Amino acid sequence: MAETGLIQFDDWVDFYASRVESMRTSAVRDLFAAASRPDIISLSGGMPDIRVLPLDQLAELAAKAIVSEGVAGLQYGDTTGRIQIKEVVCNLMRDLDIHISTGDLIITAGAQQALDLLGKAFIDPGDVIITEGPTYLGALQAFSAYQPDIRTIEFDSDGMRIDLLEEELERLGPGVAKFLYTVPTFNNPGGVTMSLERRRRLIELSHQYELMIIEDDPYSRLRFDGEPVPSLRSMDERVIYLGTVSKIFAPGLRTGWIISPLPIRGKLNMIKQGADLSGSPICQVLVEHYFTEMDWRGTLDKARAKYIERRDAMLAALEEFFPPEAQWTHPQGGLFVWVTLPEYLDTAKLLSVALENGVTFVPGDGCYPADSDRGRSSMRIAFCYEEPEKIREAIRRLSLVIADRLDLYRAFINAGALKP
Amino acid sequence: MAETGLIQFDDWVDFYASRVESMRTSAVRDLFAAASRPDIISLSGGMPDIRVLPLDQLAELAAKAIVSEGVAGLQYGDTTGRIQIKEVVCNLMRDLDIHISTGDLIITAGAQQALDLLGKAFIDPGDVIITEGPTYLGALQAFSAYQPDIRTIEFDSDGMRIDLLEEELERLGPGVAKFLYTVPTFNNPGGVTMSLERRRRLIELSHQYELMIIEDDPYSRLRFDGEPVPSLRSMDERVIYLGTVSKIFAPGLRTGWIISPLPIRGKLNMIKQGADLSGSPICQVLVEHYFTEMDWRGTLDKARAKYIERRDAMLAALEEFFPPEAQWTHPQGGLFVWVTLPEYLDTAKLLSVALENGVTFVPGDGCYPADSDRGRSSMRIAFCYEEPEKIREAIRRLSLVIADRLDLYRAFINAGALKP
Repeated sequence: MAETGLIQFDDWVDFYASRVESMRTSAVRDLFAAASRPDIISLSGGMPDIRVLPLDQLAELAAKAIVSEGVAGLQYGDTTGRIQIKEVVCNLMRDLDIHISTGDLIITAGAQQALDLLGKAFIDPGDVIITEGPTYLGALQAFSAYQPDIRTIEFDSDGMRIDLLEEELERLGPGVAKFLYTVPTFNNPGGVTMSLERRRRLIELSHQYELMIIEDDPYSRLRFDGEPVPSLRSMDERVIYLGTVSKIFAPGLRTGWIISPLPIRGKLNMIKQGADLSGSPICQVLVEHYFTEMDWRGTLDKARAKYIERRDAMLAALEEFFPPEAQWTHPQGGLFVWVTLPEYLDTAKLLSVALENGVTFVPGDGCYPADSDRGRSSMRIAFCYEEPEKIREAIRRLSLVIADRLDLYRAFINAGALKP
Repeated sequence: MAETGLIQFDDWVDFYASRVESMRTSAVRDLFAAASRPDIISLSGGMPDIRVLPLDQLAELAAKAIVSEGVAGLQYGDTTGRIQIKEVVCNLMRDLDIHISTGDLIITAGAQQALDLLGKAFIDPGDVIITEGPTYLGALQAFSAYQPDIRTIEFDSDGMRIDLLEEELERLGPGVAKFLYTVPTFNNPGGVTMSLERRRRLIELSHQYELMIIEDDPYSRLRFDGEPVPSLRSMDERVIYLGTVSKIFAPGLRTGWIISPLPIRGKLNMIKQGADLSGSPICQVLVEHYFTEMDWRGTLDKARAKYIERRDAMLAALEEFFPPEAQWTHPQGGLFVWVTLPEYLDTAKLLSVALENGVTFVPGDGCYPADSDRGRSSMRIAFCYEEPEKIREAIRRLSLVIADRLDLYRAFINAGALKP
């Protein structure tokens, strides 16, 4: 049964559930192995730079936590999370003008588990849900397991096009879509932020059309410039809010949370029992101690300073190297830039050439539902993980790969065989 | 939005997926809060006794691990788990005569996540699956989210009644059931073990009827007496095997694993990406160090010695206090005894009286599918967590609750209003 390099026949090929057909693997996860090779410059993963973390202090804190918590940290825990971590999250949320009590929370294995639990709670096969398009590819993975009909709404530099959303809601009618999923602040994959005006209108529409809003907010503390915009949850208590420590502490603790109305929380608790019984109390203890005993704001400031340098390096390199036909976003925070190339270029095909040249990125089609043909000429590039000079080099290499293809297509265009 | 004690109206009551209706909360999880009250003696949870763990050594190990692993332990990890923990699991499996390589494994958030991933991979609504009846209530929770038609096969002191399974398979025909789920060794909730003869016959039937076997094996290292019986996976490589460190180290690390053929593993990897991106690398690091650097076998021996005392105390107290109408299993290992009372007693109703008298247990109906009316007169009682004298006291109190009811029913029987 060892991996031999030979193709292994699947005895159970007819046994899979129909949902498996509608799922696909994440290019990001598949690139994970490649990204860890030292000769590769990774613009693919949304891995935060946690090299700023003070490991010696964390080690001391972990040792202290294990002794002081005793066996409680190593036993099964409450399915919804420890009361202590819920108190820490309530404090974190207060900074964002979200005022909740511990009873409003379910602690999850990162926000990714929250997406899976919400998909399981609300989506029957064929149900309509609405997302930004492009959107977070992990959300598409989580939701697609429940076979929804995903309608996507495009964004511009002010976030989701609420005018297009309204048109879609008019077509659907009230109470038809199960929910709208949005990353309104420094969204993934575009890095753009929904304006306050559009947020207000979105909330009006959510009442008018009985539309549940799920706000995924991993990046709002990674603002580099511009004025903060209030979270949707701070504007309306009906909004379901997802948070995580992945981008403000460390993803390896797998700690996120859901704020939701009480009746929904009861259902999510029941679903989470079947999914994992409980999260890891010891991870939760580490998170509690980190946010109460350590200078987490100082450490986050250090990370943010690095991201600013890298974002600036990426935008400057795009200006310097990328062809005039390319367009890209100019994020004021977060981790990502979304680049759109001429439509005759297929970024999924470019990726293998880019890999040969030592660069990875996320092809844009992964950020749309599987049955869509959109995003093929776009790419998500992350500036969070590599040093500025490496980012510049990666963009330079990418530009060469693109230029090579462009030369070919320009020849076709000049010969009249393609429209410019 | 704070919990006020008032009933909160559910704005989204019509929005839930149909699967939510077929799910129910676990009495065990709901009893969790009660069990932590000091005046309650808990016979409900399958919580291993981890008070034997050397916390000071673990604290030292955690600190060392954080420094030596560096940021790798705190970053996103490989979806299927670190290569190092897979090596540790391969070594653990060799003890059980299961010979695999790291590529055969997916590391999961406890075996509970494994059950959820397998349900998602294989169950369409209405699909037939087969389990023991009664069976592990967490498996029922995980699978029921995918709306299967669950057929249960009863067990006796030699484990699942394979003759009854054969009858069920004859009725269904080959390739109809998606899988058979079994806890063959010290099963949950009965503590009984499938005999070698029945295992051989089960594997024959699995080939004859194209039946996938999922073997859940959390307890096989908790043998107190009798001869070990080989695992199903050691007898046939087609068997999907689930393991966990919860009962041989600590549940709080949330670390389990799936051994499966390569093509299934690919699907499970894809499904796990959507469910949680990755497990916690730092939890995996702790597990790696525990099983390579510490005297885990010595610690497990200490725990096993405690369980033996407690099982003996429980069986002796049942003999001493329980009425002649009651029957129970006599486990050679594991954590549980399954008690069956006269069928006119409803253990779910007894539970509230038992709670008033300071004892919790798991009512038997939770160990059957939700649409079944079986198990109502049975209960699962766990001997793993309390000291012998407390177990004796709990059984004594339970016997009084039961005797009170029995007196009532005996009066009815004597009056000819009920059959004995």
